[in-house]
Amino acid sequence: MSGHRLQDVLHRVREGRMSVEKAEAEIRGFEDLGFGKVDYAREKRTGYPEVIFGLGKTPDQVLAIFARLYEKHGRVMVTRAERETAERVQGDFPEAEYDPMSKLLTIGRTERRFAGTVAVLSAGTADLPVSEEAARTAEWMGNPVERIYDVGVAGIDRLLAHRERLQEASVVIVVAGMEGALASVVGGLVRRPVIAVPTSVGYGAHFAGLTPLLGMLTSCASGVTVVNIDNGFGAGYAASIIQQAILEG
Amino acid sequence: MSGHRLQDVLHRVREGRMSVEKAEAEIRGFEDLGFGKVDYAREKRTGYPEVIFGLGKTPDQVLAIFARLYEKHGRVMVTRAERETAERVQGDFPEAEYDPMSKLLTIGRTERRFAGTVAVLSAGTADLPVSEEAARTAEWMGNPVERIYDVGVAGIDRLLAHRERLQEASVVIVVAGMEGALASVVGGLVRRPVIAVPTSVGYGAHFAGLTPLLGMLTSCASGVTVVNIDNGFGAGYAASIIQQAILEG
Amino acid sequence: MSGHRLQDVLHRVREGRMSVEKAEAEIRGFEDLGFGKVDYAREKRTGYPEVIFGLGKTPDQVLAIFARLYEKHGRVMVTRAERETAERVQGDFPEAEYDPMSKLLTIGRTERRFAGTVAVLSAGTADLPVSEEAARTAEWMGNPVERIYDVGVAGIDRLLAHRERLQEASVVIVVAGMEGALASVVGGLVRRPVIAVPTSVGYGAHFAGLTPLLGMLTSCASGVTVVNIDNGFGAGYAASIIQQAILEG
Amino acid sequence: MSGHRLQDVLHRVREGRMSVEKAEAEIRGFEDLGFGKVDYAREKRTGYPEVIFGLGKTPDQVLAIFARLYEKHGRVMVTRAERETAERVQGDFPEAEYDPMSKLLTIGRTERRFAGTVAVLSAGTADLPVSEEAARTAEWMGNPVERIYDVGVAGIDRLLAHRERLQEASVVIVVAGMEGALASVVGGLVRRPVIAVPTSVGYGAHFAGLTPLLGMLTSCASGVTVVNIDNGFGAGYAASIIQQAILEG
Amino acid sequence: MSGHRLQDVLHRVREGRMSVEKAEAEIRGFEDLGFGKVDYAREKRTGYPEVIFGLGKTPDQVLAIFARLYEKHGRVMVTRAERETAERVQGDFPEAEYDPMSKLLTIGRTERRFAGTVAVLSAGTADLPVSEEAARTAEWMGNPVERIYDVGVAGIDRLLAHRERLQEASVVIVVAGMEGALASVVGGLVRRPVIAVPTSVGYGAHFAGLTPLLGMLTSCASGVTVVNIDNGFGAGYAASIIQQAILEG
Amino acid sequence: MSGHRLQDVLHRVREGRMSVEKAEAEIRGFEDLGFGKVDYAREKRTGYPEVIFGLGKTPDQVLAIFARLYEKHGRVMVTRAERETAERVQGDFPEAEYDPMSKLLTIGRTERRFAGTVAVLSAGTADLPVSEEAARTAEWMGNPVERIYDVGVAGIDRLLAHRERLQEASVVIVVAGMEGALASVVGGLVRRPVIAVPTSVGYGAHFAGLTPLLGMLTSCASGVTVVNIDNGFGAGYAASIIQQAILEG
Amino acid sequence: MSGHRLQDVLHRVREGRMSVEKAEAEIRGFEDLGFGKVDYAREKRTGYPEVIFGLGKTPDQVLAIFARLYEKHGRVMVTRAERETAERVQGDFPEAEYDPMSKLLTIGRTERRFAGTVAVLSAGTADLPVSEEAARTAEWMGNPVERIYDVGVAGIDRLLAHRERLQEASVVIVVAGMEGALASVVGGLVRRPVIAVPTSVGYGAHFAGLTPLLGMLTSCASGVTVVNIDNGFGAGYAASIIQQAILEG
Amino acid sequence: MSGHRLQDVLHRVREGRMSVEKAEAEIRGFEDLGFGKVDYAREKRTGYPEVIFGLGKTPDQVLAIFARLYEKHGRVMVTRAERETAERVQGDFPEAEYDPMSKLLTIGRTERRFAGTVAVLSAGTADLPVSEEAARTAEWMGNPVERIYDVGVAGIDRLLAHRERLQEASVVIVVAGMEGALASVVGGLVRRPVIAVPTSVGYGAHFAGLTPLLGMLTSCASGVTVVNIDNGFGAGYAASIIQQAILEG
Repeated sequence: MSGHRLQDVLHRVREGRMSVEKAEAEIRGFEDLGFGKVDYAREKRTGYPEVIFGLGKTPDQVLAIFARLYEKHGRVMVTRAERETAERVQGDFPEAEYDPMSKLLTIGRTERRFAGTVAVLSAGTADLPVSEEAARTAEWMGNPVERIYDVGVAGIDRLLAHRERLQEASVVIVVAGMEGALASVVGGLVRRPVIAVPTSVGYGAHFAGLTPLLGMLTSCASGVTVVNIDNGFGAGYAASIIQQAILEG
Repeated sequence: MSGHRLQDVLHRVREGRMSVEKAEAEIRGFEDLGFGKVDYAREKRTGYPEVIFGLGKTPDQVLAIFARLYEKHGRVMVTRAERETAERVQGDFPEAEYDPMSKLLTIGRTERRFAGTVAVLSAGTADLPVSEEAARTAEWMGNPVERIYDVGVAGIDRLLAHRERLQEASVVIVVAGMEGALASVVGGLVRRPVIAVPTSVGYGAHFAGLTPLLGMLTSCASGVTVVNIDNGFGAGYAASIIQQAILEG
Repeated sequence: MSGHRLQDVLHRVREGRMSVEKAEAEIRGFEDLGFGKVDYAREKRTGYPEVIFGLGKTPDQVLAIFARLYEKHGRVMVTRAERETAERVQGDFPEAEYDPMSKLLTIGRTERRFAGTVAVLSAGTADLPVSEEAARTAEWMGNPVERIYDVGVAGIDRLLAHRERLQEASVVIVVAGMEGALASVVGGLVRRPVIAVPTSVGYGAHFAGLTPLLGMLTSCASGVTVVNIDNGFGAGYAASIIQQAILEG
Repeated sequence: MSGHRLQDVLHRVREGRMSVEKAEAEIRGFEDLGFGKVDYAREKRTGYPEVIFGLGKTPDQVLAIFARLYEKHGRVMVTRAERETAERVQGDFPEAEYDPMSKLLTIGRTERRFAGTVAVLSAGTADLPVSEEAARTAEWMGNPVERIYDVGVAGIDRLLAHRERLQEASVVIVVAGMEGALASVVGGLVRRPVIAVPTSVGYGAHFAGLTPLLGMLTSCASGVTVVNIDNGFGAGYAASIIQQAILEG
Repeated sequence: MSGHRLQDVLHRVREGRMSVEKAEAEIRGFEDLGFGKVDYAREKRTGYPEVIFGLGKTPDQVLAIFARLYEKHGRVMVTRAERETAERVQGDFPEAEYDPMSKLLTIGRTERRFAGTVAVLSAGTADLPVSEEAARTAEWMGNPVERIYDVGVAGIDRLLAHRERLQEASVVIVVAGMEGALASVVGGLVRRPVIAVPTSVGYGAHFAGLTPLLGMLTSCASGVTVVNIDNGFGAGYAASIIQQAILEG
Repeated sequence: MSGHRLQDVLHRVREGRMSVEKAEAEIRGFEDLGFGKVDYAREKRTGYPEVIFGLGKTPDQVLAIFARLYEKHGRVMVTRAERETAERVQGDFPEAEYDPMSKLLTIGRTERRFAGTVAVLSAGTADLPVSEEAARTAEWMGNPVERIYDVGVAGIDRLLAHRERLQEASVVIVVAGMEGALASVVGGLVRRPVIAVPTSVGYGAHFAGLTPLLGMLTSCASGVTVVNIDNGFGAGYAASIIQQAILEG
Repeated sequence: MSGHRLQDVLHRVREGRMSVEKAEAEIRGFEDLGFGKVDYAREKRTGYPEVIFGLGKTPDQVLAIFARLYEKHGRVMVTRAERETAERVQGDFPEAEYDPMSKLLTIGRTERRFAGTVAVLSAGTADLPVSEEAARTAEWMGNPVERIYDVGVAGIDRLLAHRERLQEASVVIVVAGMEGALASVVGGLVRRPVIAVPTSVGYGAHFAGLTPLLGMLTSCASGVTVVNIDNGFGAGYAASIIQQAILEG
Repeated sequence: MSGHRLQDVLHRVREGRMSVEKAEAEIRGFEDLGFGKVDYAREKRTGYPEVIFGLGKTPDQVLAIFARLYEKHGRVMVTRAERETAERVQGDFPEAEYDPMSKLLTIGRTERRFAGTVAVLSAGTADLPVSEEAARTAEWMGNPVERIYDVGVAGIDRLLAHRERLQEASVVIVVAGMEGALASVVGGLVRRPVIAVPTSVGYGAHFAGLTPLLGMLTSCASGVTVVNIDNGFGAGYAASIIQQAILEG
């Protein structure tokens, strides 16, 4: 925190225009809600404000953090938000939007628009929820997104028909369940970063996503990197970080 | 055993032209060597004589079984034969052939020739030992073999260049380590049975073949069946059984 | 696509008898429904039209693909269809048949009849749903099916009583949970391809099918190939592919 | 320890005929060698003296315990003894016998002879080392042993040919690698306890014995109990304990 | 089947006193219900009639098999019977008894009484359902049972207080979840067979029983054998088989 | 039990002031309730009375043990108590307190107060239930507790801001899901014992807590010890045992 | 291949200046060496020529591919090259350089120089071989590299001392064994892509790298992507692809 | 670093009595050797100087760090030192002591002596190397150590004979392979912290220590904490940290 900004905060405290709690949060970079600490400084460190990971948080906890982040940044994203949580938040923030397929709850959006496109490929129809989590995360963070869905390798011609569009993207996200082979084929077709997302779609020896996870990690195509099973958000986020690097040189 | 054949055996015993041990083996369908039982009846049951699985057997044990089977069938195959075993057998059977890459030790060969071809594909150069085990097993059992090696999916055009040859084969064997994605792509291209063989070629999250094994089992292409890791012999054998079914209608 | 067929399509477009979307699907071999791509060319490539994998698809998605495939091929099969999905489809296609045990939803059937029989064996009564998925898939694809159920190896005489029927089949499917030992015993009795299907029936150290899966992969009988846990459809499909190879030589 | 025996020990100490260390060991039931404690009371508790588990012990440690047990009981067994250990012990105890296949090192033997037989079955030739560990342990503990080797289920007739001998045994030990199916078939054929021993013989999805271990645990035959992978000793020991129960009623 | 018995069956068929189906079942040793085969010959082979494994069978299937077995043997046991199944059977067989804790459904009981006792130990209160499955199975099969519950090793004095009763039993069953250490301690205290049953009671690194299963298999006490996780029935059955061996010498 | 105390018990029995059952429990150190044994001697052995592990016990079983322990010790704690159990106990013991987040049900509390503090850190908001189980256990056992929540390492400055408070604690408990990295960072910052608790909060490759469990066990910081996944109670208990050692020297 | 280039190739063939084999390779994009296919078109597709993966290839195979690639591209990299392979290649190409720590064998280097830096962090000294594989791969592909080694989180101040240098890098590679916590801490400190490489350095519950692999995949820091265990090459390659995207906009 | 100390360092630099590199290390708390950073500040943070983890470090790397630490602290410990490394270090530091069983290489020792004792228990003779690593680490760090070896639970009386000595220790370390049951029994006997160390001694279902690791984590005794497989050093270190807490109050 710069000296100028610090003096400003302290003046506002002295004049009663800022509470002691707010000032402390401002100076330390995070605010303590008791059950959690809201990380205001994350945007400065990483380029994006904190995103709320909805899993395992009560609707009230999500709402409390949501409100603080909205006040500070004017835009918020919650991942893995159940309907009950969404409704709890929308009660206070009616303009918040909820997409039940991807379970993303958002308000506002980054103003920045990247020039290049993020291509999101999915192997099958059942991979849609994860694909949409990736695609909507990327959009919320400022990326034009090209969706290329249901191009699994058992019908390789469907993928090859999109070869050109693929090669024009700045970053490629591949979402696949089953054996996850799509990542390897795509990795060999493009000259841009490929981020692979295994999904938990499958049964039996698929072990809830372990199989495509391991397959993507041992892919015979160089340059493919991998995120956690069903982590569409992580892929969308990582793609945006790459776009940010491209933009900022 | 037919009545006629039984009388013949018994006559030969009475006349001292056959030992009691041989006669017993003939009648029961197997001979007891103490440490093992040689299965003479297998050819009748399954169409092929017993094959010696070399792993865990001493050179002397292999030699003893080899000699019995050769006497009976005029052709023998040993899988996973170490060089020491091969040399021990070749000492007594100089015409036996040993291929150090596939670790197959053979003498003779089935006389039958199938009409259709078995195509053996491999994803990478390091998959050669397993691919050759499959290919040579198939050849020994009477199949013309078409080898299409090093067509991993990271360079999909290499595979597609062989699309036609693939589609002409009667049975297709796919040998792949790493993530094993080749099986899924091939499974979607052909109208013939595809047998997938995962290999232990890889490292890290490959877990000595577990990853391509799981990937092949959860393949998005229908009709792919799978054998054990590195089991080139099993794939060649299963392909021959299918060829036998085609031949015999 | 042949030149003749292409001209025909284009004429129909010009004369307004075919929509642009249909024509595109006809030419490219697949139609894009947004959430998925219907693969019309699969029959040409593999001998059978696309089968709809019901798991993870909404009833509306299944219905949309079902309608397209029915229009194109006159017969459709959906696997792993929940009752809700079946009812949604039957609303539009009252003649579609639903079998709740195997969760197969079908309409029409291939006209071709294979000469040889597919034998479907099950180890226990609890393996019935998977066995029926295999048997009905095979029937739908044109195979006469012989069901030999509840012949687990703990009462080996029950199996041996069917030895003859087994040996007459063209392809044998073995469905077994618990330790899956049935596949090994059967594999040593027949001269025809054996496809093993592990099931998730069991508890404790059975690990939802992992144990029979591993057991079947390491079977001491040569020539046994394996499909995914509970994948009765895959076994039925692979058997049909073999039958097709026998038929077409 | 009875009062009479205790007085005897104390008298011998007073008269210098027994060292204080010996007396302490006698009274407490074990002797402390510093690196280990020799359990003299085990015979009283379990019916058999302590057996030395050779894995992870230096030759000198084995020798020290061996000498103490021999002095006390007049017979000793060491399992998993490497050749170096055997030679170290035989240097001091030339009459000790070493079997390199089973890695058992023994001296003396229990005098008791059980009436019933322990049948030891093995699935394949490569299972011999473990089978012999089981058989020789049983023999050393007083059991007549019937060896029935190489009767794996891929040639079921070889097993059925021994059905009668099997049914006459008092206890049956089944040793099998690969998928371990032999245990299930045998379990359904006999009315006597069946102890299954999975072996580490196999490769790939066999996972060093995990596969037959799991298979035997989930066996469809009731009444089969299981010991650790390659634990031939444990099976022979458990069989003897059952024989002891039969003998003592 | 003896010649005398066979003639009797055939006479009854000729005279219309026995249906053809019954006669076939009598001669072959099993009856085919379509979905399952009832194994009438099991009692002859193993000493006990078939027990119905309830898991994965519909109430109607259980009832059908139950009725056939009751007619034949006059006593039946169903394991893992859900309440719905129990009520379906009790509708037709009001005298059938159902124990909801062990999920055993029984009618009749073996008349034979063994002289020795089966001791059933449990480590904790939560292991009761499995302990009772073991105890009641043993009782149904003719064993006097001694229950010694809640003697886990964290309070070793509770176990040692029962040392004498333990040592008087003919067979000992140890039921334990958590880390399963009780089996090792008991194994070192008694001179009789110890059968260990791991339970799925625990959480986290317990992995639904995998941990005590592995622990019991690698027990430092010799002579402990193990059955599947939660398989109280299997332990009770194996104990009875041992008792039968003791009784019959 | 001292001679004086024993005489006292026996006098009370003779005079009818104590039941035979109570006296037996007093003398043996535990009371047998049939389904379980209440361990009265545990406090003497370990410093704390028995704690009731609620998982897998019926409400009635918990109540019975609760009542006995309350009568004996005047304070009781139940872990993993479901609401139904809590209400059953509170029916008889209205002053019992239930915390639904940590699922702890308690009455009374140890009188002893330790001088030093136990710091409980959590990585994220979703780790709260386990963190509270640890914190409340520690409080119930006499520890002042300092809660430092939501200091996961992705925002390392939040943790470093509490460096001083951390270093003042006597024992540190680290509760973390996801990858569990917090334990390693904290382990390198303090000179006091660190007890790590992995939680089941996460998804995909987190495998219900296996990942942070393994991570904490292989931590690069020396001196970190680990308890089971979600075992907040165990950590609180172990911390108290250390505090007891500090207090008693 | 453009029409102009094709005509040029064909002219050279006609005039005998190019062999038929070379021409075929030129036109198809790959050359068939029998045991492998050299992929000349990869540079066009992905921006970099094929890299030889040394594991499982014989020295002769590596040399043959090396020679072809050098002739075509003027620069070659071999990963996981054993010393024997390196010496075989250096025999023909003395200017090839071999680094025994990273096992990289290279000749030439890309001429392009990226503006931004790739920071390579390692947690411990034992991670050096993998770190160097990453760093040297990146250098060979045109990246300035900043090495920040031995900054594991058990001494967090060592890492924080390099905070600034970290934040100036364009891409960050984190190499860590043990629990791999470094990736999470770094992921929260920077606004640039972070690629995590787990290493097989560790023992026990580390499971040859599985633990840091899982930990990195479930990292609490957003935007971290992961490659296979010990895959320093993959990380260096992926970093270069990102740099290429930055350079080309 | 205090102002006084800083001035002193700077004066020495100015006067040429200290090199710039030394001064930087002094001020920052660590010195950069290129391949590693020596952490001088660790003693201040955690109470003990850095210990060198020998695994994966070359002898030269170990020597370099050893020399720096010796110069700074006058005492050094290296864990997992191979003989080659020990000899390399002893070449320069002849007074360094090497214990080949525990693979510890030490020089000097902490001067502080704790009042209480650390008891180190081992289950079997084969656990000695890990037990000695724990015991000697504790001794080097100032603890009187009581060794109680070979008291595995299969002979529970051997353990109970040491009950009193156990209860007098300040901290108890339990080292056990096989199923690791010793930790649970000991945990229920003492009122002091118990640190459990699983060892890799075992075979088959022991999985190189995984089984006792899981068993110890799910121990039925409260208050047991666990370190990594074979991590005797970690246990000795953690015990010392507890002793330090006891000493410092």
